[in-house]
Amino acid sequence: MGLIVQKFGGTSVATPEKIHAACRKAIAAQERGNQVVVVVSAMGDTTDDLIELAQKVCQYNAIQTIPPKREMDQLLVTGEQVTIALMAMGIHAQGHQAISFTGGQIGLITDSVFSKARIQSINKQRIFEQLHAGKIVIIAGFQGITEDGDYTTLGRGGSNATLVAVGAVLKADVCENFTDVDGIYTADPRIVKNARKIDRISYDEMLELSGLGASVLQTRAVEFAKKYNVPLHVRNSAHDGEGTWIVAENPNMEHIVVSGAALKKDLTRVTLKGVPDRPGIAARVFGEIAAANIVVDDIIQNVMDDNTANVSFTVEHGELNDLKSVVEKLLKELGGNAKAAYQGDLSKVSVVGVGMRVHTGVAQRMFGALAGAGINIQNITTSEIKISCIIRKEDGPKALQLVHDAFELEKTR
Amino acid sequence: MGLIVQKFGGTSVATPEKIHAACRKAIAAQERGNQVVVVVSAMGDTTDDLIELAQKVCQYNAIQTIPPKREMDQLLVTGEQVTIALMAMGIHAQGHQAISFTGGQIGLITDSVFSKARIQSINKQRIFEQLHAGKIVIIAGFQGITEDGDYTTLGRGGSNATLVAVGAVLKADVCENFTDVDGIYTADPRIVKNARKIDRISYDEMLELSGLGASVLQTRAVEFAKKYNVPLHVRNSAHDGEGTWIVAENPNMEHIVVSGAALKKDLTRVTLKGVPDRPGIAARVFGEIAAANIVVDDIIQNVMDDNTANVSFTVEHGELNDLKSVVEKLLKELGGNAKAAYQGDLSKVSVVGVGMRVHTGVAQRMFGALAGAGINIQNITTSEIKISCIIRKEDGPKALQLVHDAFELEKTR
Repeated sequence: MGLIVQKFGGTSVATPEKIHAACRKAIAAQERGNQVVVVVSAMGDTTDDLIELAQKVCQYNAIQTIPPKREMDQLLVTGEQVTIALMAMGIHAQGHQAISFTGGQIGLITDSVFSKARIQSINKQRIFEQLHAGKIVIIAGFQGITEDGDYTTLGRGGSNATLVAVGAVLKADVCENFTDVDGIYTADPRIVKNARKIDRISYDEMLELSGLGASVLQTRAVEFAKKYNVPLHVRNSAHDGEGTWIVAENPNMEHIVVSGAALKKDLTRVTLKGVPDRPGIAARVFGEIAAANIVVDDIIQNVMDDNTANVSFTVEHGELNDLKSVVEKLLKELGGNAKAAYQGDLSKVSVVGVGMRVHTGVAQRMFGALAGAGINIQNITTSEIKISCIIRKEDGPKALQLVHDAFELEKTR
Repeated sequence: MGLIVQKFGGTSVATPEKIHAACRKAIAAQERGNQVVVVVSAMGDTTDDLIELAQKVCQYNAIQTIPPKREMDQLLVTGEQVTIALMAMGIHAQGHQAISFTGGQIGLITDSVFSKARIQSINKQRIFEQLHAGKIVIIAGFQGITEDGDYTTLGRGGSNATLVAVGAVLKADVCENFTDVDGIYTADPRIVKNARKIDRISYDEMLELSGLGASVLQTRAVEFAKKYNVPLHVRNSAHDGEGTWIVAENPNMEHIVVSGAALKKDLTRVTLKGVPDRPGIAARVFGEIAAANIVVDDIIQNVMDDNTANVSFTVEHGELNDLKSVVEKLLKELGGNAKAAYQGDLSKVSVVGVGMRVHTGVAQRMFGALAGAGINIQNITTSEIKISCIIRKEDGPKALQLVHDAFELEKTR
């Protein structure tokens, strides 16, 4: 008995039959005595199909081929709106009551950064009214609306952001993230064949893993879940088995040194050389990059003898074009001999575990595993609960398996 | 130089290439010095595809297979939203500025009669702001939003209702209805091979023709155009030729006795027998039917010797199920021996022309043409500018051709 927010990803609602199965899951949860809210993504490849359609429309003797982001969001939000209506109909067809809401209809207000907007508030009143009336409430994931009434999308994994944000404002007992995998694995099972499903993992570990390339849950969703202490349950929509619970850390978790390993692909390392070594320069550089909504990682700064500094960091390959224009502008303003160098085709292999706080020798074991196979480490960054090594892209899969083996992650704890 | 509202129907935006062509038409109108607003329908068969998807979702062991109308509207409005975004992108790709708006985003408020909502108001402020900024404004047809923020659709031909309503609030110089035919014909050219395109026709004639089965423009759109005196230009999106202008009546028009003929198919005649002949009964009967949003026509009432009345009228076949439940309820309340009879498989052939006001012998010529071919007339209704005959459905196409020939409608006036 409680309030459950369920989310069904695109593959879990890809066909009328799968939508029916998702409806049955929502109804089953309600029949167990819960109030049920459902967040859904667009069906299957809908979003990709819409993007392709947009590209076709923009190809005729085009002067500018990149569509305005506002219009792309106007287009893409229709994908989830189709699914919510179908879910509500599917539940109704089973003799239960349901009502669907777009992001706008529940007042899911975002900033106006089209294509990667941030949630600012949700009006929970309308949701509670419908829950109290006995209805299953279906909400469109991935989307919101600005104060001016423009539609926005929340960027990659936006439906999970919606799931957790809705769970947080409603103070849900659990957010169930239904997907096409059984849960979070010790490493990507497509690469590491003996990867093992994790039963419980802390928010912080999940945060690190998400940021490092584990694609099931995005950083933003986990951050939100942690902030509002909403338990997340990642599970497979194809069966009723338990998946992975993502919960607040507890002392028992520190017995496990490393919980999982991850591989992040398609990184480019950017190095700014000859940057004047003055206070505030780094803040300025990364401030401008952040203002352009580009995420950077693995920042390293060295001061040289000639009173200049080298600043290097990584960005995902997809952000490179946006980044380059920011960097060109920055270099001009910094003046002097500042230059930028770009090294592509990199990956990052990482291990994560809250146990690192109390156990030693983790870095040594990881570096040893990679060195033993002749894999060159180009860069190392660490946090309290993770160690990351930048390596050549071609070494990535092998490195992930080596690290997984080194910490015996396939073994149940 | 003026303000033009263009509308592109589903077939005129069915593919990326056709959307591009529509974008070029809007840009051309702007380059001639006009402010341009564009209303669009869903692409090609999108609406039908969405309805089919809904039916599939509702088929699994369903307890109730008819989806809630609110959810059907929630689903269907996505069709036009896709087109507006693509149109705005297509215009942008050509180096021009455009912005798209859903019905909700221009405050197109309707009542909450889902699936056939009526427009109550439009907030023209946002449209004018964008026009003044030099943009082509793209608006989703067929849709609106209630005061509560629920999406509604405007029923069949709803995009034309949007076209004319937007034209009216903006006081447009012309509303151009781009479609896949060259204009309004003296009869449906798929049935009458020598039907002729009409150059100019009055609002009242068009109103009658629309109500009688001419499918290019719906009654509601024409009513609105007449009320606000907005000239309508129905034309083919495939070329630049002139189509049919629908305008206020002028004295010259009375020289033409009959402007066009029409055939309305799939009618059922409903006869209520033994209805108590008391004042207010007819008002009550048709009041209840209207309250259920069912359109009836060809009403005839006869008073019998036993102080009861027979009331008969026609409805479109598609409305029959809704109607039957209203009629059952009415009969119970009326008590006595009141009974209902239904006769299906009927059609209605009609001629229309403002010239009937001043010319005589029109009815005679029509009845003679039908009688000469042995077609039995089951019912006759007339207005100031039209004559309609209910006939058997199987006689329909032949009757239309006979009437067309009798008034020599193929000849240019």
